[in-house]
Amino acid sequence: MGFTQRHLLGLEGVPAEEITTILDTAASFKEISERDIKKVPTLRGKTVINLFYEASTRTRTSFEIAAKRLSADTINIGASGSSVSKGETLADTARNLEAMRPDAIVVRHPNSGACHLLARHVTCPILNAGDGCHEHPTQALLDLLTIRERHGRLAGLTVAIVGDVLHSRVARSNLHALRALGATVRLVGPPTLLPRELALLGAELHTNLADGVRDADVVMMLRIQRERQGANYFPTLDEYSHYFCLTEDAVRLAKPHVIILHPGPVNRGLEIASTVADGPYSVIMDQVTNGVAVRMALLYLLVARSKAEEAGGAEALPEPALRRTGGRA
Amino acid sequence: MGFTQRHLLGLEGVPAEEITTILDTAASFKEISERDIKKVPTLRGKTVINLFYEASTRTRTSFEIAAKRLSADTINIGASGSSVSKGETLADTARNLEAMRPDAIVVRHPNSGACHLLARHVTCPILNAGDGCHEHPTQALLDLLTIRERHGRLAGLTVAIVGDVLHSRVARSNLHALRALGATVRLVGPPTLLPRELALLGAELHTNLADGVRDADVVMMLRIQRERQGANYFPTLDEYSHYFCLTEDAVRLAKPHVIILHPGPVNRGLEIASTVADGPYSVIMDQVTNGVAVRMALLYLLVARSKAEEAGGAEALPEPALRRTGGRA
Amino acid sequence: MGFTQRHLLGLEGVPAEEITTILDTAASFKEISERDIKKVPTLRGKTVINLFYEASTRTRTSFEIAAKRLSADTINIGASGSSVSKGETLADTARNLEAMRPDAIVVRHPNSGACHLLARHVTCPILNAGDGCHEHPTQALLDLLTIRERHGRLAGLTVAIVGDVLHSRVARSNLHALRALGATVRLVGPPTLLPRELALLGAELHTNLADGVRDADVVMMLRIQRERQGANYFPTLDEYSHYFCLTEDAVRLAKPHVIILHPGPVNRGLEIASTVADGPYSVIMDQVTNGVAVRMALLYLLVARSKAEEAGGAEALPEPALRRTGGRA
Repeated sequence: MGFTQRHLLGLEGVPAEEITTILDTAASFKEISERDIKKVPTLRGKTVINLFYEASTRTRTSFEIAAKRLSADTINIGASGSSVSKGETLADTARNLEAMRPDAIVVRHPNSGACHLLARHVTCPILNAGDGCHEHPTQALLDLLTIRERHGRLAGLTVAIVGDVLHSRVARSNLHALRALGATVRLVGPPTLLPRELALLGAELHTNLADGVRDADVVMMLRIQRERQGANYFPTLDEYSHYFCLTEDAVRLAKPHVIILHPGPVNRGLEIASTVADGPYSVIMDQVTNGVAVRMALLYLLVARSKAEEAGGAEALPEPALRRTGGRA
Repeated sequence: MGFTQRHLLGLEGVPAEEITTILDTAASFKEISERDIKKVPTLRGKTVINLFYEASTRTRTSFEIAAKRLSADTINIGASGSSVSKGETLADTARNLEAMRPDAIVVRHPNSGACHLLARHVTCPILNAGDGCHEHPTQALLDLLTIRERHGRLAGLTVAIVGDVLHSRVARSNLHALRALGATVRLVGPPTLLPRELALLGAELHTNLADGVRDADVVMMLRIQRERQGANYFPTLDEYSHYFCLTEDAVRLAKPHVIILHPGPVNRGLEIASTVADGPYSVIMDQVTNGVAVRMALLYLLVARSKAEEAGGAEALPEPALRRTGGRA
Repeated sequence: MGFTQRHLLGLEGVPAEEITTILDTAASFKEISERDIKKVPTLRGKTVINLFYEASTRTRTSFEIAAKRLSADTINIGASGSSVSKGETLADTARNLEAMRPDAIVVRHPNSGACHLLARHVTCPILNAGDGCHEHPTQALLDLLTIRERHGRLAGLTVAIVGDVLHSRVARSNLHALRALGATVRLVGPPTLLPRELALLGAELHTNLADGVRDADVVMMLRIQRERQGANYFPTLDEYSHYFCLTEDAVRLAKPHVIILHPGPVNRGLEIASTVADGPYSVIMDQVTNGVAVRMALLYLLVARSKAEEAGGAEALPEPALRRTGGRA
């Protein structure tokens, strides 16, 4: 039950048992979103700020729903319409927000490392909702929760991560966490999008889709970010698709019980065939559902539990955290 | 008291008695917004998503206030700053939101039929907040509530709807609902903006303002959407105004007890004279007040009542839905 | 304990004792944001609309947090994505919002006087969050609270306000309030940015930084708004900075116990040296923390107290306003 993190900046270096604590907590929170009254009082009177310097629907919405189902107050700040456009430094923005006494700040930022910088200037927990090409730890945690639900374990599984690995913060976070929990990780993509140094972190590298997915227990597709394709990492989208689109034929090379993940939004027919995205082995919607549970778990562990531990009563918390709210608002 | 709708996609085909149920429920909810504590616990622990692909102040604000006064948690998603710009299909966006377990999704979309498409991909209620040139059912319902309040009935009234009928989702929704409830509907505008096929739905068509408003009990002005006037439906705004602006002289042709409606935002001096918009027969502000009540009623009927009916206890709900919240937050 | 304002449009003409009431109330509200559960039920069931026609992070966030910590429901409306772009007049927007029965509207607008105009069209309290070059009263009030905390009083202090006084609504609001409370106010800046008529309001004018800050108890720096520098009020930013940037040398001319304020966002190295902004005499972060308390106090005084006074029980309110919420949500 150990959990010692003050922030969630990334999964690199987070011990296996702490990742397991997050997944166990998330599993226990899933049920709240299936209730008639989807709300527990755990974070009542807490303020959670969503500071998003990049466009996002699903991640911001997921964090906001997670906070609200824990009864926290949420504040959304986007890059447009904010003082970001007035040239304030990120550190100054952080210090200013901190002075308003938030209990957690969720940050998405186009620059790798932005969350680490913020964490040096605030005392409240920072949750990384994606920073540049660095990490996207809550996405990886929801992926792990989804895999563990379906396969009952993570250790010993073979997970193929396919696509634009070079720019993928999702791939990096998954690589750290899956390796920590004993899975074999294959990174699959064209050579220009497959950084060789990731082999040093224990990944197998494959430039051929068939080799990459053969006998895999899990295939995790990455999104081709059309908006990033100014640089010529591959000749054309058609050529990329010809070699790396996950078709039903490619799925058949994997183990019969294979599950297919995708962080969304899906480019149908580009990196994944529609029949695969909607097929029986697809767990893409489970990922989204698990995303809310993972974010509830992290807000609980970082905000509610840390306060309780300061007060010396952490052990008593998990149960009341799940208790229903009173009959009246 | 029957209400069988799972969604509110439009008013075409909704039976008169169900429209009356909505109006009766809305009338009973109006009082909540006049209380010192404007909040009932009806939708506590429910999540209402406002998914707006078009700019809106009043409709989005009205839905958000309605949800909050019922104690629901609200999530706003706009087209800018969302994954819409990442090329995700509407169906995929819907499925992703659904996976986060919302209890209702309110949708405004520039394409006619977008709400029907969404409703095919989710199980939670969809509320159409305006789709292209198709329907805007909550606007029509608040119009009906306003007319019924002032005239005591809808059956037998003559309602003149004046302006850009061709592009007006407000006109279409009103036509369906007013006809269902026994009103005579006149559609009034220049021939280029007056689709002949609407006569098949029981409307009288008039291309002359004086003929259209003569002896009317209700005149409902439509907004000229300047931003749509790339296509040449009329020579100039001045010429449009010369023939179709509702002046005090035109109002005098209607019945003495006539009331004037406008869905806003008002283009003063273009489609309606300022003296008319602010005159004694204007009920434009009543419409806005009734909008909150209508949206509260719909959220209640679609979210709270449907849940209660599943549990077999629908009849008991209306009263506690209006009960005050407890003394403490 | 008197407080007779119906709106907070500006500080010009607000009597000293009413300003003191606001500051005293704010001081008593500060403690709420330091609690584990940062929430009181004072404004439960009230609707606070944040209507921001200009970009803002800190002011909008501060108002939103203030409202939520008082348990109010908050609605954010920005200029983009709203019917502002549809050409509606400000008065019509105000009347429409009023019809939805908000309990307060917080307004930021690029035009001086916009809040006064709004206040003529609504019955609910309007709180000015900055209007053009006119006033920004909540900023001045948080400045006063910060000064009073540090120096124990306002009367008899010498406050130097340095920078682009011409365009500064912060300077105007501070001048009114500081003079009312007995402080000496020096306005300091290049002649082109120093309106002579402010001397008529009791300000001393200085065009030399050293003269302006000498023996001051408080130095309040204004932000150079780079986005406004199309007009040529000074030759270059470098030249401005050479003469008016607050360096450690300049601070040494002030009294030893001087405190330095800045409304943010800070342009480090332009109007203030980084070592000064982060130095021991800097109270910039205190200002931000006090901003939440001042806005809570104003919402309380304008919304909760006015309702209680109508009911004849104002004197009993201050204590329960600070009471903790019940044990459950």
